Parts: sequence; structure tokens; C-alpha cells
Amino acid sequence: MGAAVLSDLATEIVVPVCAMIGIAFSLVQWVMVSRVKLTSERHASANSNKKGYSDFLIEEEEGIDDHSVVTKCADIQSAISEGATSFLFTEYQYVGIFMIAFAILIFLFLGSVEGFSTKSQPCTYDKEKTCKPALATAIFSTVSFLLGAFTSVLSGFLGMKIATYANARTTLEARKGVGKAFVIAFRSGAVMGFLLAANGLLVLYIAINLLKLYYGDDWEGLFEAITGYGLGGSSMALFGRVGGGIYTKAADVGADLVGKVERNIPEDDPRNPAVIADNVGDNVGDIAGMGSDLFGSYAESSCAALVVASISSFGVNHEFTAMLYPLLISSVGILVCLITTLFATDFFEIRAVNEIEPALKKQLIISTILMTVGIAIVTWIGVPSSFTIYNFGAQKVVKNWQLFLCVGVGLWAGLIIGFVTEYYTSNAYSPVQDVADSCRTGAATNVIFGLALGYKSVIIPIFAIAISIFVSFSFAAMYGIAVAALGMLSTIATGLAIDAYGPISDNAGGIAEMAGMSHHIRERTDALDAAGNTTAAIGKGFAIGSAALVSLALFGAFVSRAAISTVDVLTPKVFIGLIVGAMLPYWFSAMTMKSVGSAALKMVEEVRRQFNTIPGLMEGRAKPDYTTCVKISTDASIKEMIPPGALVMLTPLIVGTFFGVETLAGVLAGALVSGVQIAISASNTGGAWDNAKKYIEAGASEHARNLGPKGSDPHKAAVIGDTVGDPLKDTSGPSLNILIKLMAVESLVFAPFFATHGGLLFKIF
Amino acid sequence: MGAAVLSDLATEIVVPVCAMIGIAFSLVQWVMVSRVKLTSERHASANSNKKGYSDFLIEEEEGIDDHSVVTKCADIQSAISEGATSFLFTEYQYVGIFMIAFAILIFLFLGSVEGFSTKSQPCTYDKEKTCKPALATAIFSTVSFLLGAFTSVLSGFLGMKIATYANARTTLEARKGVGKAFVIAFRSGAVMGFLLAANGLLVLYIAINLLKLYYGDDWEGLFEAITGYGLGGSSMALFGRVGGGIYTKAADVGADLVGKVERNIPEDDPRNPAVIADNVGDNVGDIAGMGSDLFGSYAESSCAALVVASISSFGVNHEFTAMLYPLLISSVGILVCLITTLFATDFFEIRAVNEIEPALKKQLIISTILMTVGIAIVTWIGVPSSFTIYNFGAQKVVKNWQLFLCVGVGLWAGLIIGFVTEYYTSNAYSPVQDVADSCRTGAATNVIFGLALGYKSVIIPIFAIAISIFVSFSFAAMYGIAVAALGMLSTIATGLAIDAYGPISDNAGGIAEMAGMSHHIRERTDALDAAGNTTAAIGKGFAIGSAALVSLALFGAFVSRAAISTVDVLTPKVFIGLIVGAMLPYWFSAMTMKSVGSAALKMVEEVRRQFNTIPGLMEGRAKPDYTTCVKISTDASIKEMIPPGALVMLTPLIVGTFFGVETLAGVLAGALVSGVQIAISASNTGGAWDNAKKYIEAGASEHARNLGPKGSDPHKAAVIGDTVGDPLKDTSGPSLNILIKLMAVESLVFAPFFATHGGLLFKIF
Repeated sequence: MGAAVLSDLATEIVVPVCAMIGIAFSLVQWVMVSRVKLTSERHASANSNKKGYSDFLIEEEEGIDDHSVVTKCADIQSAISEGATSFLFTEYQYVGIFMIAFAILIFLFLGSVEGFSTKSQPCTYDKEKTCKPALATAIFSTVSFLLGAFTSVLSGFLGMKIATYANARTTLEARKGVGKAFVIAFRSGAVMGFLLAANGLLVLYIAINLLKLYYGDDWEGLFEAITGYGLGGSSMALFGRVGGGIYTKAADVGADLVGKVERNIPEDDPRNPAVIADNVGDNVGDIAGMGSDLFGSYAESSCAALVVASISSFGVNHEFTAMLYPLLISSVGILVCLITTLFATDFFEIRAVNEIEPALKKQLIISTILMTVGIAIVTWIGVPSSFTIYNFGAQKVVKNWQLFLCVGVGLWAGLIIGFVTEYYTSNAYSPVQDVADSCRTGAATNVIFGLALGYKSVIIPIFAIAISIFVSFSFAAMYGIAVAALGMLSTIATGLAIDAYGPISDNAGGIAEMAGMSHHIRERTDALDAAGNTTAAIGKGFAIGSAALVSLALFGAFVSRAAISTVDVLTPKVFIGLIVGAMLPYWFSAMTMKSVGSAALKMVEEVRRQFNTIPGLMEGRAKPDYTTCVKISTDASIKEMIPPGALVMLTPLIVGTFFGVETLAGVLAGALVSGVQIAISASNTGGAWDNAKKYIEAGASEHARNLGPKGSDPHKAAVIGDTVGDPLKDTSGPSLNILIKLMAVESLVFAPFFATHGGLLFKIF
Repeated sequence: MGAAVLSDLATEIVVPVCAMIGIAFSLVQWVMVSRVKLTSERHASANSNKKGYSDFLIEEEEGIDDHSVVTKCADIQSAISEGATSFLFTEYQYVGIFMIAFAILIFLFLGSVEGFSTKSQPCTYDKEKTCKPALATAIFSTVSFLLGAFTSVLSGFLGMKIATYANARTTLEARKGVGKAFVIAFRSGAVMGFLLAANGLLVLYIAINLLKLYYGDDWEGLFEAITGYGLGGSSMALFGRVGGGIYTKAADVGADLVGKVERNIPEDDPRNPAVIADNVGDNVGDIAGMGSDLFGSYAESSCAALVVASISSFGVNHEFTAMLYPLLISSVGILVCLITTLFATDFFEIRAVNEIEPALKKQLIISTILMTVGIAIVTWIGVPSSFTIYNFGAQKVVKNWQLFLCVGVGLWAGLIIGFVTEYYTSNAYSPVQDVADSCRTGAATNVIFGLALGYKSVIIPIFAIAISIFVSFSFAAMYGIAVAALGMLSTIATGLAIDAYGPISDNAGGIAEMAGMSHHIRERTDALDAAGNTTAAIGKGFAIGSAALVSLALFGAFVSRAAISTVDVLTPKVFIGLIVGAMLPYWFSAMTMKSVGSAALKMVEEVRRQFNTIPGLMEGRAKPDYTTCVKISTDASIKEMIPPGALVMLTPLIVGTFFGVETLAGVLAGALVSGVQIAISASNTGGAWDNAKKYIEAGASEHARNLGPKGSDPHKAAVIGDTVGDPLKDTSGPSLNILIKLMAVESLVFAPFFATHGGLLFKIF
């Protein structure tokens, strides 16, 4: 067996240091973004710098008063920022109440396992030792839950703040050229990515060390309590994704339906009353929601790995370095992503529009290659050459090179998923071009081809996930799955950077349009945005792939903790769970899509009302009432996020309490295998439609020009597809990966309760 | 234990007699349909019958030369009939080659299990007895396979013949009133329903008796060989559904896109070159395809029940009556459906449009209530009061009342699924009206609401299926599931009658339009057709629900025959099967939807070409070239049905051979739980869009009139939804239930081979 090369003390130092480096790096990026001034002083100082000024003029349009443009941009930015902040505060208020109620539930349910006894009990896996009472697990799970929720809020909020800080700056930089704008947008994404990854790591590290003060040698209890952190992070993420998703798409669909389709005004036209709500939406949905989501994935995969490891030889023998292997991987991930980022911002420069997508793609490849080396090193120094893992009642011996393969297969599966997603959603390849081509015969064929594309795009990712599962499961049981998920998420900082870059560019385009800047600027931001649609889809691909692995790992941990050794499909209890579980993603999607539809209808009516009743609005002489539209989106999303949220949060509780752990295991497996498919297809279908529309609009090829220009029949058909895709790709699709993760982590946290008091219905009959 | 009340001899008589009664009844219905003459002689004779003639005139439009209308109808009918016959013959030629190749494969694979030895072997479940060699199973499975395929072809072909015989007659009867037309359409449906149910039963009965001549007391071998019958039926059904589905929707979508959307001419306008292909499509897709499909379900559920029973106490003790319990249920089902049919055609009369849907609904209720009594009787006299069932290695004692509950729960679950489907697809209720309402804001919201409706419509059916599974599984293990499926299918004759009624009415409307009959006639056939959309959705609901139960039963039989006792989700082999299996329905749907899209594009181009190049076509002075459009649909469907067909047929072979029975079990379970959801949602979404469009067109309420009339913007949006729904509800959705059944029955047939030679890949590594 032997011990790890890295000493426990070194581990204690390495992890927080890497986290601090991540935070420091994100601050540096932030300083660089902040150099673009949003006040006219910068311009004044630029005046004195002759070279800078002429450089500036080269690409600047004539006849535009620069001073007023900057002021306009600043105004718009602050309107967006205020809207986003106010929405998030409202959202957090409502969710806060829910979180406190749920925290009390956790305490009561887990405390009741041993009847709120304060006496220590013999441990589950080693009867000779004494472990802390269930009451302690109840208390600390509750605390971890609140901590996870808070960290998630912080992640989403900071991301939103940075994005709304960067959007107008990207617009202004776009005047200097597409390369400059790209760097600003990408740096802002990196601020968010690094802050989130480092923050998540640091909080988890501190929490573990604090809990150790109480738990001492009872690592089983310690890491069980820590799972609350994952549950908190994910619960918050659910509401963030669903609420933000409904907000953004209600505004987007509403704005498009009246503006683009009925009134024939461009996207983000300042005359459109829903335009501010639309841009706020990008920040609360795609940025804050996605930040919370990926933070949740990260927290859960770490928790899953830790809780499984706590009953392996690491946990039993108290090998601290090996125990913290998941955190070591994340630490190295931060360093790897740091180097990778430099390739995008410093080592190379973007000079033309067609260099954007390759640059982003290179980020994925570089980070994956570097990380493979990083994992090899961490595995070599961080774990013993051989150790045992708990495998549903049996012990399994694992070699360190096998563990390396587990993490590696997850990492590379992520890259494959990323590339497949790119292939199906980028308009540089035939799938999206085929969809665009089908617009010739109208919206119906566009929708049919888009749906078919989404279904088809599921095939390779599922094989990639299946292979990762098979490899990591065979080598290291559920611990293998958990570290494979961590491997996929190890480059999360880079993933988030390229993901956040999309909505920032989208917003930048919106601001350019609203500030009345020239169409050249808009073309540049559009080019950034088109690449952003693809990277957003890639980000979602990662989120879904990792969610599948994470929830399987959590599922395994749940099964271990609930003390069931087989989940046999051939028993009625399990099978009904499986089929009902496979139905849940449909139920959930029905709710969220209907919510977007209804909220969009309200938005449409308001926008139409304003166009009809405000004189001079269409001619640009009067200002629309942006606030009412913001309010409609806010109210709708707050109201509508509750039923789907309740469905996800209550299902494990109801099933576990009334039907017991076997049925719940079936539900989790069913939701997982069915939800992954819908999530991937929904997000790719939506991305493809969006880019098919952009393909026609950009008219970069003979084929595309034949379908265009804007306003042609094929373009109108493409806009319909894009609108249908909005709730698919930004509301129901990405929320589904939270559904599968959250149900799994919740089951894990409540497992002791279900194992003790669950299955009421079967007990009665 | 005791024996059944009914003697073996009585069983030998009852089953074929009931089948003969069914055939006789369908002939009587056919004679009644044939009384409506398609030649003008009838009209001449009607002239002499004063009352009949005046009766005739009351509702007839003035100024239409009756003689020419009848001739026109006859011409159109023969064009449709010829098109359908020629397509089916082409299809059968191609599929025939495939079937022969597959038959050889079955023989080789199964023969190789014992190395083509001709020696008898000790039985699997009773080592003291000798059973026939694997070679015999190979030969007779192959024969049964071909027999099943042939019966399926016959079912589909006869159904198509009857439908194309009845369509024009329904049109002519519509002149007399909606009630008369309804009776003709319904009687024609009944011809098909009874012929198919009785034929399937009779062939199966004869096959069992013939095989008994060889097998003697080796019932295990006998009923294993019989499973080939289910495989043959289902394989044929797959190609029928997929080929027919692509045919009908390519024509329909193509015709609508140019005719309704671009040229603004009504549906089924004779100027549209694709109109004949469209009407042919209804007959080859909705009639022949659906007939083959439901025949397959029926054959498979019978086979599943028989093969499970053959290793229970019935089989071991050679209790013939109890053994044939599944056939007895079907026999009683025929009698019950016969009585039920009289309620629609003879006991009551339809006088107004709004009585159609209730009349069809009553059919479902009456047949279910009567059948409950029928099942009680059969169970009481057909099975011993207590018996044992093989339950994955253990024996389970079952009481006869428990078996009654198993069948009953399946039957009533079918009714619930029927009602829920009606609620979500009929425009009498709010879900479809909401979808229609969303057309106010355009096609995009229509599509979003429609998709959400489909997702939502899955919830209750899945609970109904889950409860049936739980009850029947708990009472009688896999035998319980198999008889629950049989219970759901026991009223198949009525189900098929109301299902076939839809496309017949649709065709009748088409003929009325093409023959230039007055819009009153068209309104009547439209009313019949709107009810038909709902009944078609109900029929699909039944098909899917029963497919879920059937494939679970087949899955159980496969697991028994492959000698695995648990299918544990917590093993990597099973889990990767589960997730890949859940992906297959998406892969399959991607193929079929893309096929419809591509074929429709070709059709659109041809139709446009004809409108642009044939002078006077738009003005009605020139005749379009119908044949080219028929050829496009034929070629496309033959070519495009091969890849999805191969996917379904080859997957079990590849997975079983290379990955072994555990992974295959995972694949089957995954495909089942995921496929059911997509199938239900796709078919309901499509049905809802179709009826939302019809709701706006009919303008029967204040709300509907606000959205209309035909040609308004909301109506155009509704047409787009309808077009998107076409491939969902008529191609990919209904094919999915064949996918899940077929993979299960194929695995069952090949189980001995996989158990002996399978899992090559794992054996190598």
C-alpha cells in the first residue's frame, strides 16, 4: 500500500496557495479590464497621446460624437447592471426563505435518524470505533448546506457583476478592432472563471478543516456532513438556472417576437421596450445561472469523491493527502488554466473574425493537454501506489495509474463532448448549414431539421460518457466515477471563461446597437457573439457531461450510504422508479417551457401596448418604458421558478419517505439516463438554430447569401427556429443537468433518514 | 393447485371458434360497406326508390351532376388504391429480401448454440427430462419468424385494401349526413380491427398446434420456438411503420408547404401535384403501418406470456387450458369488441357533429367494462385457483384472482391512457385551446407550447404504466406483466376500429375536395377527421402503453432465458447499457425525422416545379403529374427506411455478441424507459398541433373565431405547428414503440446464442 509522496503538511499548504493564486490572477485580469475607461477622461488623456488617438481613429466611424457614445454606453451599462442586481436581490430574497425552510428540514430529518440523541455511536463501517452522533451530522450538514448556498450565491453574483462591468468596455474596445474586443471579453470571462473555481476550492478547504476540529478522526461523519455543501450549492443553482432562464428567455422571446418579426426593427434596437430586460437576462441567466450551476457541479463532484473516499483505505487509515486528492486536482487545474489563459490573451493576438473560434477551441485543447500532465503529477505524488476502495460491500484494490486513467478519461471525454458540440452548433460545419438551408422551405422544415440535429448530436457524447463510466467504474468503482467527473471539471476556470465570454459579447452587441454606434462595431460584436453561441453550447455540453458523471457518483455514494448493495431492475420497486424517473425531465421541461411561453406572451402584449400607445416610439422620438418590461420578467421568473423547483426538491423526499431507497435509486438512475439526453439535445438544437440564423445574417458564403439577407423569407423562418430554441437552450436544457445532480445529492444527504424511516407505503401494506 | 374448470378439449374448440366469429363479423361489416355503390347503377336503382331518392336529395347540393361526382370519386379512389398497392408491393419486395437474410441469420445463430447437433438435450429447468435439440428451436424459430412476418404483411395489406375500398364510399355517404358517413367509416375500421385480431389469434393457434406435433411434451422448446412469430411480426411492423411513416409525411409536408403556405390553395386541392401521394400515404402509413404495429404488439405479448408460462407450473404440468390462457383472453376480447361495435353502428345513431367524439369515447368505456367481466370469467374457468410462476430463479405462487387483477390493471391503464391522450389532443379541452391561443404571437410560441404540452402529457400515462407494472409484477412477476399487456390489448379490435376510422375519414375528405364536391360535404368529413386525429392519438397511446408492458415482459423472458438473475444498475456493464439504450430512441428519431425532412424538401421542389412549368395548373385547366410525386415518396421511403431499420435490428445482435447479456439487458431497460416518454410526447404534440389548427379552421367558438379564419396570421402559425408535428406523430413517435418491442423480442429469440457465445469483447480483455 504505502503512503503518498506529498506530505500532509505540503497538502495543507498547496491547496490554499493554488486557490489564492487563482484569486490573485482573476484580480489581475480585472485590473486589465478596468483599464478601459467608461468615462470620457480616458478619451481626453488619449487625446494627448498622439499615436493612441490616431490608432483610435483608424477604425472609428466618422460623424459620431465619441464623447456622447461613451456616456451612452455607460448609461446603458448602469441600467443593465441595476436591473440585474435588483433581480438577483429579489430572487435571493425568495430563495433565501426557501433555503432556510429547507435547512430546517435537513436538520429535522437527519436529526431524527437517531432520535436527536447526543450520544456517539459505533461507526457503520468499523464497529469497533465510535463515531459522532447523527445529530452532529444533522447540524453540520445544515451548516454546510447554508455555506454551499451562500458560496453559490456569491459565485453567481460576482460573475454577474463582472459581466455587467465588462460588457460596455467590450463595446468600446470593439471600436479598435475585433482582437481588442475579444481580449476584453475573454479577460472578463477569466475573472469569473478563476474567481469561481478558486473560491469554491478555498471555501471547501476551509470547511473541511473547520469540521475536522470537531470530528477529529471520525472522517466518515466529517465527509458525510460536507455533502451538505454540494446540496446547498446545487439547490441555489437550480433556482438560479430556472429563475434566470425564465427571465432571460421571456425577455428575449418577447423582444424578438414584436421587434424582429412584427415591427421589423433590428435586435437590441433601443426603441424596443424589452431591450433592457433582454440584456439584463443574459447576465442573470447565462452568467449568474451558469456560474451557480458549474459551481454546483464542482462542489458536488468534490463531495461525491470525498464521501466515497472517506470509507476507503484513505479514510480508514487517515491518509490526509490521498483523502484530499480531489482538491489537489482542482488546485492543479487552476494553475493549468492560468497558463492556458495566457495563450488567449497574451501569447497570440486575434486579427480577424475567423480567428475567434479557433482561438477558443485552442483553449480547450491546450488546457486538456496540460491538465493530463498535471493529473499525472498529482496522482503520482498525491496517492499511494495502491489502495483499496469501498465497492458496495466489497473492497477493491486500485493502483495509482488506474486512478490516473479514471481522471484522464473524464478530462478527455469532456474535450470530445466539447468538439462534438462545436461541430453540431457552429455554422462553420454542415449540420448547422443544413438547418439554415432547410429554411428555404419555411419555418416548419427548419424546426424539423433542428430537432433532428439535436437528437443526433446526442450520440457521440453519450458514447463518450459511457466509455468514461465503464473505464472509471471498472478501475475504481464509484470513486473512479467521481474523480472522472472531477477530471472533466478540472479545467473549469477555462471552461467558464470561454462560456462567460459569450453573453458578455452578446451584451456588448446590444450596447453598441442601443448607443447608436455604427454597424461596423455591431458586425464585430456579432462575430464575437456567433463564436459565443458555440462556446455557450460547449459550456453546456461540459455542464451536462460532468453532471452525468457527478450524479452517477452521487448515486453510488447514496447507495453505499443507504446500505443497499444491488439496484436490480428486475424488481418492481426499482423498475417503477426507473420509468417514473425517466419521466421527470419531461415534466420539468414542460413546466419551464410553458413558463417561458406564458411570460413571453405577457411581454409581447406589453411591448405591443407600448408601440401602440406611446406616440413617436417607432420613429425614435419617444423613449419606451423599459422598467415595466423588466418588472414583467422579474415577476414571471420568481413566480414560475417555484413549481419546477419544488418538483426537483420534493421528489427525492417523497419517493424516499414513502417508497424507500430502492425506488429512489430507480428514480435517480431513470432521471439520469433520460435527462442527459434531453439536456444535450435541447441545448444543441437551440444553439444550432441560433447560429443558423446568424449564418444567414452574416452572409459569409455564396450559400448563405442565397438564403439571406435579413428580412428574407428564409431569414424569417430562421428567426422562428431561433425563438423556439431560446427556452430549449437557455431554460429547460441547462436546468436539467441540475435536476439530475440535485436529486442525487439530496438523496445522498437524506440517505440515513430514508434508510431508517423511509418506505412508509410498503411498510403499511 | 387444482386444474382449470375449462377442459382442454373445450379450449381447443373455444379459441378457433371465437376467431372464426371475428372473421365472420368482419365479413358482415364488409358486406355492409359494399352496399354503398361506387358506380352509377346504384344511383339509377335509387331513382326507382322514391323515398331513398328524396332522402338523398335533402342534403345534396344543387347544381352538381351526381353521376359525374360518383365517377370522379371512383376514379380518385382507384388512383389512391393503385398507388398504395404499388408502394406496398415495392416495400414488401425490399423487406422480403431482408427478412430472408434475417431468417438465415436466426437459423445460423440459434443452430450454433449446440453446434448444430441433432441430439436431444436435458431440459434447462428440469434436468431429468429430455428436450428437443437447439437445432430444432433454430429451425422452428425461423419458420415462426417467417410466419409472423407473413401474417403481419397480410394484416397491413388487408387493412389498406379495406381502407381504400371504404374512403370514397364514406365521401358518398357524407352527402346523406354525418351520421351515415360515420357508420361507413367506422364499419370499415371494424373490418380491419376484427380481421386483424381474429387472424392473429387463429394463425398463432394453428402454429402452436402444428409445433406440438413435433415437440410433444417439450413445451419449453415449443414456446421458445413460437417467439419467432412475435419477432417476425414486429420486424415487419418496423419497416411498415418507418417506411409508411416517411412516405405519408414526406407527401403531406411537401403538399402542405407549397399548397397551403405558398399557393394558398386548400388541403387536398386536386391542383396540388402531391395530393394523391398524400392520400396514398394515409393508407400505407396510418393504416397498413399501424395494423402491422398493433398486430406485432399482440403477437409479442402473447408470445411473452406463453414463453414465461411454459416454465411455470402450467408448462411443467402440461395444463393446456391454463397454458393457452393468453389466447383465451384474446378470444373473449373478440366477442366483447363485437358487442361493443354494435353500440356504435346499430344501437345508437349519430345525428350531429358533436356526437362523434363521445360515440368513439363510449366505445372505449363500453369495451373496457365488458372486458372486465370477460376477463373475470376467463380467469375463473381458464386457470387453476392457484399455481406457480417462475420468477428469476425462484418460484412464486399466484392465486387466480391475482391474475385477474394483473389483466384488469392493464386493461384499465389502457383506458386511462386513452382518456389522458384525448384530453391533451382533442380541441374540446383547454390544452389544445391554449396551444391554438399561442398562435396569436406566431409560430414560435405555438411550437414552444406544443412541445411543452407533449412533455406534460407524459406524466399520467407513465404513472398508469408504473402502477400496472407494480401491481402485475408484484402479483405474478413477468407473467403478470405479460398478461397486463394482453389485457391492454384485449380490446384491440375496437381500438383498431376507432383508430382506422381516422385515416379513412381523412381520405374521404380528400376525395370530396378532389371530386369538387360542395364545402358542406367537406365540413362533414372534416368533423369526422378532427375526431379521427384524437382517436389516432388514442390509438397511439394504446400502442405505446402496451409496447411498454410487452417489452418489459419480453425483457423479463429474455433475462430468464439468458439465465441471469439480477440486472444490477450498480455494475458498469449494465449501467453503460442503460445510458446507451436511453440514447437509441434519440438516434432513431434523428434518422426518421431527417428522412421526412429531406424527402419533403424533394417533394416541395417537385411540386413547385410543376406549378411553375405546367401552364394553367393553378387555374385548374391542366392536370398535375401525380405519378412523379408518388414516385418521390416511394423512393424516399424505401431508401430511408433502411438505416433506422438496421439500427434497431442490429443493435441487440451487436451488443449481445460483443458485450454480452448484462449490457444488453441494460440497453433494453434504457431504451424502454426513455423511448416510452419520447413516443408519448411526440405523438401527443403532433396530435395537439393538428387539432389546434382544426380548432381555428372550424371556428366553433368565439375564441376560435378570434384566431381565424383560414389564412389569418394565427392560422398560418398553426399550419407551421401542424407541419412540424407530422413527422413527430406519424413517423418517429409511433415507430419508437416498435423499437422498444422489437429489440426486446429479438434479444429473447437470440438469448440462447448470447448466453453461449456472447460478450466476446469482455472475453478477449
